[in-house]
Amino acid sequence: MRGAVIHAPGDVRVETLEDPKIRHSTDAIIRTALTCVCGSDLWPYRGLEPVGDPHPMGHEYIGVVEEVGSAVTAVTPGQFVVGSFATSDNTCANCRNGFPSNCLHREFMSTCQADHVRIPNAQGTLVATDHVPGEEFWPSLLAVSDVMGTGWWAADAAGVRPGSTVVVVGDGAVGLCGIIAAQQLGAERIIAMSRHGSRQELAREFGATDIVSERGDDGVARIKDLTGGIGADSVLECVGTAEAMRQALRCARPGGNVGFVGVPHEVAVDGEELFYSHVGLRGGPAPVRRHLPDLIDRVLSGRIDPGKVFDLTLPLDQVAEGYRAMDERRAIKALLTP
Amino acid sequence: MRGAVIHAPGDVRVETLEDPKIRHSTDAIIRTALTCVCGSDLWPYRGLEPVGDPHPMGHEYIGVVEEVGSAVTAVTPGQFVVGSFATSDNTCANCRNGFPSNCLHREFMSTCQADHVRIPNAQGTLVATDHVPGEEFWPSLLAVSDVMGTGWWAADAAGVRPGSTVVVVGDGAVGLCGIIAAQQLGAERIIAMSRHGSRQELAREFGATDIVSERGDDGVARIKDLTGGIGADSVLECVGTAEAMRQALRCARPGGNVGFVGVPHEVAVDGEELFYSHVGLRGGPAPVRRHLPDLIDRVLSGRIDPGKVFDLTLPLDQVAEGYRAMDERRAIKALLTP
Repeated sequence: MRGAVIHAPGDVRVETLEDPKIRHSTDAIIRTALTCVCGSDLWPYRGLEPVGDPHPMGHEYIGVVEEVGSAVTAVTPGQFVVGSFATSDNTCANCRNGFPSNCLHREFMSTCQADHVRIPNAQGTLVATDHVPGEEFWPSLLAVSDVMGTGWWAADAAGVRPGSTVVVVGDGAVGLCGIIAAQQLGAERIIAMSRHGSRQELAREFGATDIVSERGDDGVARIKDLTGGIGADSVLECVGTAEAMRQALRCARPGGNVGFVGVPHEVAVDGEELFYSHVGLRGGPAPVRRHLPDLIDRVLSGRIDPGKVFDLTLPLDQVAEGYRAMDERRAIKALLTP
Repeated sequence: MRGAVIHAPGDVRVETLEDPKIRHSTDAIIRTALTCVCGSDLWPYRGLEPVGDPHPMGHEYIGVVEEVGSAVTAVTPGQFVVGSFATSDNTCANCRNGFPSNCLHREFMSTCQADHVRIPNAQGTLVATDHVPGEEFWPSLLAVSDVMGTGWWAADAAGVRPGSTVVVVGDGAVGLCGIIAAQQLGAERIIAMSRHGSRQELAREFGATDIVSERGDDGVARIKDLTGGIGADSVLECVGTAEAMRQALRCARPGGNVGFVGVPHEVAVDGEELFYSHVGLRGGPAPVRRHLPDLIDRVLSGRIDPGKVFDLTLPLDQVAEGYRAMDERRAIKALLTP
């Protein structure tokens, strides 16, 4: 099969790799319908995380089941499936508590920028659609497997409810999907913090009612101006840097909540500041599997269209250009067609 | 009047001070019925916080109203009142959102180890009882104004609900009151982390079902043993040190919650660890005023008896011995009678 391999920062290539095989009775093999490049893939690409030995890349996928292990009964060959970047058995205590992305048997996906993928824990991870959906739905279903699931979780963790005032920190694909989630959950006011024209436009299309282009202390001051001086009920931190976390915490009102879904890089939260703020903080890898049936339904019924975050489509063989375009912020998110 | 003044670490004296006067129309003056020494008073007493110039001490009080400013109509002279260490107008946006301890007009009380006290924001802060309660209820009503209110908030912030498994980190007065709160909120299992015989006994009396005397990694391992390997639904952090916070976060299950009410001293939360734990974190100065009517009712109806945390009673003039006994852990909490 063909798949992307990272060799060093800035060096991602598509190579011929060994075809994936069923290794455990709980595995499935899918033929990838679509895959893509994630903002978190840029950390090693930019040399901000060690690359180590050359290894495959990618954790987002939708596809058609080709083969299943003997323990897999929930999906069958020929079915169109959506999964998650974190696999889960959907039966352990953490899964039952609603945190499949902390499944006791979790494996993070890491080989999905390829035309075939082995899915561990397939029984608990994959959700099949009733029939093969029209291709027009595929980008949004792919988004659901990661960025839309993560945006939803950010809103959930931040306690967004009908009437809430919401701030979204980060205008990448996850932040934009967070706007969709806040809108769907009934937020009255959604303030997107963004400095990029095309992203501001998409933010508005997804439901943002206000745009704040200032950052740092100035950004916080603007949010206070817009929220009666106290801050927002819910803040979605969708970046993962120390600056973004600080900004998010300071934009929330006393008793408000920050949902943080940007994978943190050198983030430390000051205990005293958090204490006196009364702000609640929860984050983590999104429990996508929990929300998958609902989100698939919202896509197929036309209520949400998160696939719009893909503003560049490339054949898998041109994955390197996908990374480059995202690194240079020429693209929000690059879709790859195997 | 007579009141306690701290001059330096280890040096607290009762002195004759100027009688408090109404300064603002929103003030009240109360004659103190009972006051006490708080664990947080020990920080400057131990020299772990700067003392600065000599200043009065104390933020816990119950008493009888002697005089009110012209804007105070909710309480009248002669009424017995319970308040909070943080004053609040009970009308601002933060108060309406349930966070009176973050009132836009908040003043922290700091002169209560005295026979008379000026209460700012009296209208929003003080709650009068129907009549002067029997003296047997006074210690518990005093507890409600701070440690019981704080224990309740810890349980609330940690999301304790019927059937929860709860861990309480810290066996001081607040931790012990956190056990009462967890029990009242219907927790099925309450694990107290305590190494002191007399405190373990009180913990059991208040509703603890298990005692864990190990600390740090060993303590976390014991909690995991007792909770099916995953940790507790809710953890109450009632200490405020970096070690206690680390222990609390590691005792919570994925998707669980930590309520932190120990005033943090040099606590930094690692963003990456918090992220992958999926644990929710919320703390702060307890919004005692929110819970006051309910907690007063629980005391006067005999459902809770948090006054048992006072295991030493001294006349106000012997306040120095109260600090010493608590510093040396000879007493959990010292009650002072003016």
